[in-house]
Order: sequence, then C-alpha cells, then structure tokens
Amino acid sequence: MRFTIKREEFLKGLTTAGRAISGKSVMPILENLHIELTDRGLFITGSNLDLTIKAQVPYKLGEVDVIRNHKEGSVLIDAKRLIDIIRELDSEEITFDVIDTTNVVINGNNNRSNYRLNGIRADEYVELDLEAAGTELTMSVSDFNILVAQTAFAASTKEKKPLLTAIHLEARDGLLFATASDSARLAKKTLSIPEGIEFIANVPARIMIEITRLLEGKDSLNITFSDNKALFTIGTTIVATRLIAGEYYKTDNVVPKNTSCILEVNANDFIKAIKRVIILSTERENAVDLSMSEESIKISAKSSSIGSASEEISDFRYIGRSLDISFNGEFVIAAIRALGCDDVTLAFVEAMKAFIIKNAADDSVIQIVTPMRSY
Amino acid sequence: MRFTIKREEFLKGLTTAGRAISGKSVMPILENLHIELTDRGLFITGSNLDLTIKAQVPYKLGEVDVIRNHKEGSVLIDAKRLIDIIRELDSEEITFDVIDTTNVVINGNNNRSNYRLNGIRADEYVELDLEAAGTELTMSVSDFNILVAQTAFAASTKEKKPLLTAIHLEARDGLLFATASDSARLAKKTLSIPEGIEFIANVPARIMIEITRLLEGKDSLNITFSDNKALFTIGTTIVATRLIAGEYYKTDNVVPKNTSCILEVNANDFIKAIKRVIILSTERENAVDLSMSEESIKISAKSSSIGSASEEISDFRYIGRSLDISFNGEFVIAAIRALGCDDVTLAFVEAMKAFIIKNAADDSVIQIVTPMRSY
Repeated sequence: MRFTIKREEFLKGLTTAGRAISGKSVMPILENLHIELTDRGLFITGSNLDLTIKAQVPYKLGEVDVIRNHKEGSVLIDAKRLIDIIRELDSEEITFDVIDTTNVVINGNNNRSNYRLNGIRADEYVELDLEAAGTELTMSVSDFNILVAQTAFAASTKEKKPLLTAIHLEARDGLLFATASDSARLAKKTLSIPEGIEFIANVPARIMIEITRLLEGKDSLNITFSDNKALFTIGTTIVATRLIAGEYYKTDNVVPKNTSCILEVNANDFIKAIKRVIILSTERENAVDLSMSEESIKISAKSSSIGSASEEISDFRYIGRSLDISFNGEFVIAAIRALGCDDVTLAFVEAMKAFIIKNAADDSVIQIVTPMRSY
Repeated sequence: MRFTIKREEFLKGLTTAGRAISGKSVMPILENLHIELTDRGLFITGSNLDLTIKAQVPYKLGEVDVIRNHKEGSVLIDAKRLIDIIRELDSEEITFDVIDTTNVVINGNNNRSNYRLNGIRADEYVELDLEAAGTELTMSVSDFNILVAQTAFAASTKEKKPLLTAIHLEARDGLLFATASDSARLAKKTLSIPEGIEFIANVPARIMIEITRLLEGKDSLNITFSDNKALFTIGTTIVATRLIAGEYYKTDNVVPKNTSCILEVNANDFIKAIKRVIILSTERENAVDLSMSEESIKISAKSSSIGSASEEISDFRYIGRSLDISFNGEFVIAAIRALGCDDVTLAFVEAMKAFIIKNAADDSVIQIVTPMRSY
C-alpha cells in the first residue's frame, strides 16, 4: 500500500474518523485508525464499538488530484500519533508508504520530514457492521440540528440508567417524536416526516451531538434504523451507533394538564435574573424560588451561611392565582435557551407539579421541569 | 458604612484584589475581601498571606463621581460571591450598605436586584504588612515584562525546593540580574538600573507572572525590597509578596565556557521541527536527539513501541566538529520562545555538558539547558 495525498484532505478524513476514538480504550486495537486504499478512494475508520465513523477521501476533487501514485492495501495505525504528525507537517502533500505489511513510512514533500510508525496488520481490527439495513429516513441538516439542540441537553449523563442517556426517537403517522429526559426534566420535539415511515430507536444523546459536528457544510443526512443500530450517511462519511436496548419510559402522561397559572416573560431578562440569584444558591443544587402574582414576579435564592438574593422581573404578563414554586435554576435556563425565542411562556398547575416551558409561537417543542421542594 | 459606586470601577477593584485569593484557603477568613471606605477612597484588599493585593477606587475620576452618598467604614465579605454578583448585575451604579456592622445589602440602581450577604467584622481579618520599607527600585513596565517573560518559565513549579520556584534578583553596580532555574535549565536576564541600588531577593516566579497581569495600561512600577518582603506599587494598587528565604544557588559557573560548536538556525523552523519529532518521544520525557555536522542538521526522536521521527533542517550555519546531543525538546522550545528573536544561536561544548541558547543580537539574556543522556 502506498499513496501520495494532499495533506489537508488527508487530515480532514483522519480527524473525522478520529472523533470515534476514545482516549483510553479497554481494547488497545481501538486506539488505531483502519486505513484502506481501494479503487474507490481512501477509507479511514475509527471506532469505540459504540460509535464507528468511516470517512472517505476521493482520488479527485473536481479536476484536482487528491491521491496519486497509489497502490491499494490497508493497515492499522496509532490514531493519536498519526493525526498529530499530519497536523504538524509543513507540507502540501504527504507520502504514505507501507513496507513489509506494517512499517508505515510518512514523508513530507520536501523529503526533510521522515516518520516511521509501527502499524498493525489490518486483519487484526475488530469486525464492524457498517451495512445500511432497516427503515430509512432522510432529514435536512437544519431539522436534525434543531432536534438535537432542543432535546439532547435534557438527557442524563449518568450511565446508571442507560435508557435516560438516549434521545428516544419514534416515527409514526408522518411525525417524528424526539424525547430526552433525566427524570427531573424532559424535552420533546416533534417534526414532520414523510408518511409511512415507522420506527422506534434510542440513540445515545452524546452521539447525536457528535453527529451535529460532522454536518458542517452539508444540507441533508440519511439515517437507517435497524433493531440494534442506527447508520448515518453524511456525504461520503458513514457513522454507525449502537442503539440503547430496552423499552423507553412512557412519557405521554408527563405533560401537565390544567395549567391554570401562565407566566410570559422576556427570555433573556429571566435567564439573567436566575443566573444572578443562583450565586446565592449554594446549599441546595441550584435551587431558585419563583414567587408569582398578578402584581409582581420575584426570583430569589438563599443560603443560611452566605446570604440571600432577590430579583424582581419588571416586564411580564401573569394570569392566575398567586403561586410560589422552587426549581433547579440551571434546568430552567437550559430549557429556555433550547427554545431559542425572545419571549417564553411558563405554565404551572401547582407548586409541587411539573411545569411547562414553551415558545407560544412554536408548538413543535415542549420543555417540562419537575419542581424542587421549597424550604 | 455605605456608598453608591459605578459598577465598572467597583468590579475592576474587586477583581484586582480578588487575584490574591486562592480557591480554598486553610484560613477561611482569607476567602473574604477586606473592603474599607476612608476619606481617600475605597480600598479593597485580598490576600493568601504569600501574596496580598490592595486596590483603590477613588471618589472621582477626573470630573466624574465614582463614589457618592457615602459613609466611612469597613467589612469583610465573601470574595467569590461578591465578585460574581457585581459582575452579573445589570446596573450602572451599585449601592453597598452595611447594616448592624456585618449585614451587607447590595442593590442595583433599578431597585429590582436586592442581595444580602453575611459579612464579617473587619477587625477579624489577618494583620497585613503593606508598609514600603527597604531598597527602592523604579522599573518601566516593558523592562519588568521582558524580565519575567525571559526567566519565569525556567523556574521550578515543584514546592520541594522552594528556592527554585523563585526568580532570584540581584542588584549591584548599576545592573539587575534575574535568574531562574529548575536545576535542569536556567534563564538569566541582565538589565541596567541606576547606580547605587543594591539588594538580593528571591521573589516567587508565579507572583512575578501575576504582577505582569496587573500592569496593563501602566508605564512603570515601583518596587521596594526588604529582608522578607517585596512591595510593588502599580498606580494606586499595592502588591506585597513574601520573599523566599535562603541563599540562592551559585549559578556563576553554570554558563558553559569554551563552546566550540556553534549552530545558527531560524527560530521558528527549529521549534516546528522539534514539535513534530516530540510526537514520537513517548518513552523519555520529551527527549529529542540533535545530530550536527557542517553538512547537515537532523532532529530525531524514537519510541520502541510506536516508531521514529526525523527532521532535517535545511537553513542553518554550523561551525565545529560533528556532535550528537539529546535534550528535553519542550525546554529548548520554551527557551527559544523566551528569546523572541528570528534567528537563534546554540553553543555547545560537548554531548554531556550544558549548552547555551541565545540571541546573537542581544547579550542581555542567556538560556542554558542541561542535556539528557542519549540512548
């Protein structure tokens, strides 16, 4: 195997596939990239088993030769060192040469930089399933990005309940429902999709976020869902992720009904006031008290050792009886930010019932936060 | 005690003094700022005992009232919370009011933000010595900054040998000598100062770096050195630091003599080549091999498990016999960067003797690195 390649395109492929490689792997073989040159181009694959990314560098981009002077073959090579070397090299083209199956020799085009890396035979790599199978869905990048931005933050980051680390996707009746929850809050987004597409899949939220980083400059992506994996096709890059097994929690009844107290405020003012009073919320996890009446809206927090904070919101509309409620201020800030709107509506049932945060002008997304017990 | 103050000026004073406060202190009282309003202005003091910073906010800046509606007094108040609150408040002016000696009430000028902090009586603060005493030196900010930039990086960060964490300053015969060393490398800067000033002081290198951060927008600073402390006056801000006790190591004999092998290279090319080969230097601490002859200059590194790297330097001038030497590449990069010049000169005696890195056009600064044993 050998090839001479434009450094910039090689680096792009390496860093894309390298995103799948974890710092320390329980399987050392996974610290390598699988590099394969075929008649269709150069394929670079990285994997941590949960997530696999396969990037392609073509022989030509338009009329320009990207890869030349080539001989097909494959090898495994330490991802971190290879990426560092290709990133730092002062050379427009790189020559990559495999001698005796596993000795990789890398040269800059000035022949002054010479790197020799101990590779591993490509057939020692793990078996990866990158075949598209199951139900297919094509989404615009803007739809996918907003789905992730409005839900992923609400998923749990604790591995104790794996299902809660997922975005639960359900397609039926021409709609795609995306739900994420860490059990103290829940985010739900609904998007229109073509009729007749049906599937249920629990995709790890952090992998959904990782995929948004691969979408820059792209218009759409294609996803296929089978029983145990989702396969994302983004241009010439293929991303496979294991799905999280198990039946997701029923969340239909989580949305509070009979919300009789409705608050409308400027999103930015409300976020800033919460951020300030949280400074004094040192004893309970970001606990903030919201006191509402038709006359005034007050946000406050206190710490017996440090002191207390109180903010009055001047610009608001409130309908309902007087109500005091406590919540995790960071959760409410994240929910409001995810809505991305100027004015936000909060709808309450009573002090100890979950409440809704939404954009009155967009009913495709709803945020629900469980209150904290007030003291 | 009470005052109404321009938020921006208050915040500037708080963050300046706050720089002296460590995250967690063995003495909880030191997590507070000492705030005192006198007839000369507002004084804000923070300290971790090793370092004390006292900032001043004046009553007026030019014709503009900075502090108004005031009553003198003093209080101690949690630094982190106070700074966070004043930073986040949406208010041009802040009212700061102490009720019953220690209850601090902070209001924004719209009266919608109300913060109450539990202060501590000012007389419970530690006794601090901020009196100027000893030998006085006035330096330009540019001289001070370059002295720190060219030496501080070479000091040790390990507290095991406290003297090595200092920049050793010695003034005599119209010269100021600044030396820093972690025993594997040494940096020495010489500056002209007025005749007749004599002192020896070991100032912690990290405090010298901290002081450069307080110098923005200033032209000069005044320093007084006594037996156990240095006092820096920067505009209206006073910084005091404990000196490190003990007699500094004799370093006069460290500068290698009879350097018969001289290499001149482009600083940037040389740094980049070292940075690249270091990628393969995984088994010995950033060890890099330099192989020099009048025909070629080669930098290389190898790791038995990963591979090897070799870089040829094309643009060089070398005088002397063929010589191979190994060194910590990061030390050489830091030394070259500290010189801040386009071309750099390295002067060697032999493979196992310390070598010199210098700027041929500036003999006020010298960098010395001890080689590593080559394998």
